[in-house]
Amino acid sequence: MASSSSSLTETRSPELRKDPINNRWVIFSPARAKRPSDFKSKFSENQNSNSSSPCPFCIGNEHHCAPEIFRVPSNLNVDWKIRVIQNLYPALSRDIDGEKDGEISGGFPGRVVPGFGFHDVVIEAPVHSVNLLDLDPTEVGEVLLAYKKRIEQIKERDLIKYVQVFKNHGPSAGASLSHSHSQILALPVVPPTVSARLYSLKEYFDQTGKCGLCEVQPKDLLIDETSYFTSIAPFAATFPFEIWIIPRYHSSHFHDLDSEKATDLGGLLKLMLRKMSMQLNNPPFNFMIHSSPLEVTEAQLPYSHWYLQIVPKLIGVAGFEIGTGCYINPVFPEDAAKVLREVAVN
Amino acid sequence: MASSSSSLTETRSPELRKDPINNRWVIFSPARAKRPSDFKSKFSENQNSNSSSPCPFCIGNEHHCAPEIFRVPSNLNVDWKIRVIQNLYPALSRDIDGEKDGEISGGFPGRVVPGFGFHDVVIEAPVHSVNLLDLDPTEVGEVLLAYKKRIEQIKERDLIKYVQVFKNHGPSAGASLSHSHSQILALPVVPPTVSARLYSLKEYFDQTGKCGLCEVQPKDLLIDETSYFTSIAPFAATFPFEIWIIPRYHSSHFHDLDSEKATDLGGLLKLMLRKMSMQLNNPPFNFMIHSSPLEVTEAQLPYSHWYLQIVPKLIGVAGFEIGTGCYINPVFPEDAAKVLREVAVN
Repeated sequence: MASSSSSLTETRSPELRKDPINNRWVIFSPARAKRPSDFKSKFSENQNSNSSSPCPFCIGNEHHCAPEIFRVPSNLNVDWKIRVIQNLYPALSRDIDGEKDGEISGGFPGRVVPGFGFHDVVIEAPVHSVNLLDLDPTEVGEVLLAYKKRIEQIKERDLIKYVQVFKNHGPSAGASLSHSHSQILALPVVPPTVSARLYSLKEYFDQTGKCGLCEVQPKDLLIDETSYFTSIAPFAATFPFEIWIIPRYHSSHFHDLDSEKATDLGGLLKLMLRKMSMQLNNPPFNFMIHSSPLEVTEAQLPYSHWYLQIVPKLIGVAGFEIGTGCYINPVFPEDAAKVLREVAVN
Repeated sequence: MASSSSSLTETRSPELRKDPINNRWVIFSPARAKRPSDFKSKFSENQNSNSSSPCPFCIGNEHHCAPEIFRVPSNLNVDWKIRVIQNLYPALSRDIDGEKDGEISGGFPGRVVPGFGFHDVVIEAPVHSVNLLDLDPTEVGEVLLAYKKRIEQIKERDLIKYVQVFKNHGPSAGASLSHSHSQILALPVVPPTVSARLYSLKEYFDQTGKCGLCEVQPKDLLIDETSYFTSIAPFAATFPFEIWIIPRYHSSHFHDLDSEKATDLGGLLKLMLRKMSMQLNNPPFNFMIHSSPLEVTEAQLPYSHWYLQIVPKLIGVAGFEIGTGCYINPVFPEDAAKVLREVAVN
């Protein structure tokens, strides 16, 4: 199994590929690689290194946390399964006057915006040792529906332009607490990756009349598939073993997800996290939900399409990447897809 | 000294700032920060961890390296001070046919380019324990002139569109060998950050008739200044304690540097690296030379302006940054500039 994909890589020359969704060049450089099947995480940090101090996210320690926004189930007389709370160290503040745009920009019109926004935490399970991949598909779906509910609350605020949902797992992937959680950061600007993606998708739509993400042909990039979602190694993956989960139906916003699709996505997300953990030695990872700005025009609807990106942290970012915005990926996505497709999950 | 800058930060609300040069939003979030003067590197990895195996970059071990391109001085009868060699594990290959653009793109026109390019290493000193900041200004200038010479050689090759010069110092900043060296990667495409920068600078020029980098007003962002160069903490610094060294004269390409300016820049670069090392506990770092594409049009000359960016590795990149392309910086650049301005270097 490993030999066919590795020999494939070894005979290849380096090539540059352009991601047509994000309009970004990636250098595929097999000379720098191990065999795809031999890739393991080198970030073997102890997830529970801070377990001696009481974990504020564990059930019973709610008083150590910033205020709760809501919990699932909402009934206070039963144990909670999911809690959505404020971040104790928010990057943006919900308490400042975001309306004062013009005034505080002293000398730099349009270059300074008050740091108004929401920075929340989703505690995915009440018990410390339970990770997202340990939940069953319905329970992962409930976490996804908690994201949806919080986005729908935030969406009511005029000044918020974009909501980024993301998860950091493992200290070297940016998680400061090991208890399984994800984050929701609501911004008063549309971030650069989102504008660039919309621009690329518009270009594709103008040329073909079609949505670039509906048109993705998985072929040898396919990992798995469910009724509503496809998981692939993207054609111009920025990182080795990067995975995209793409809705097979056209949809601009993640928060339009219904319960049935949430459970379906929950199952596929769980499967991808399990395969990644088994194949790559429980690596630190990030996942990000790439949705559309809260307000999209009628014209943008046909070509804006959300997806979920999973990135195991296997390599670091250095001067070349900071300088150019180009990434060097030692693993061809066809090889990563083959390896992940073939991971046997019990 | 520390108290005034820290109290400045503590009373501030978070704000978003747009970098007008790179058209990028940064979130300044003092709630997440230590006092600026208390920032130290947490990446205290041992630079010499691999010192038990012979270092291929040390004088006498030249036979362990990929082929040499040139050395300084060029006289083979005296010891070398600088060597420019091929990278043993190049990201791009100088041996493949870069002309075959159209042919290999099977099915993906314009989305695949052969991985033709040059990936070279500049060994900055013959002795293992000598770092760039230990050299005197003239010697640092000679390293800069070695970059220039190599770029001028590469420039003769039609297919190369951009040359990225960068340095990774320390394992967690991407350096796989501890012997002081930098890298030159010559690409067959113009990278995204370079296109975005040119676009922003053009916009500024169209609005004001001036070059955005000539117009930078250091004021309280100033760190130091020489005859030809200014070092500042940029207004919308992506990373804490990020430094830009900007030519005070208008110039599109780094490789137009002459010997006098190279020595002047060498002195300022050395000073910045020493201040950073003293203040931040010898942090891992990257520096990148942001030049213009090798070919610029007459129209682009008035607004394209190179600079050198230094980034100490003090914080990691996680899901939010990968997702949005926005960065969260806990240190306001005014505070970083004050701290770095006041570091006493005997």
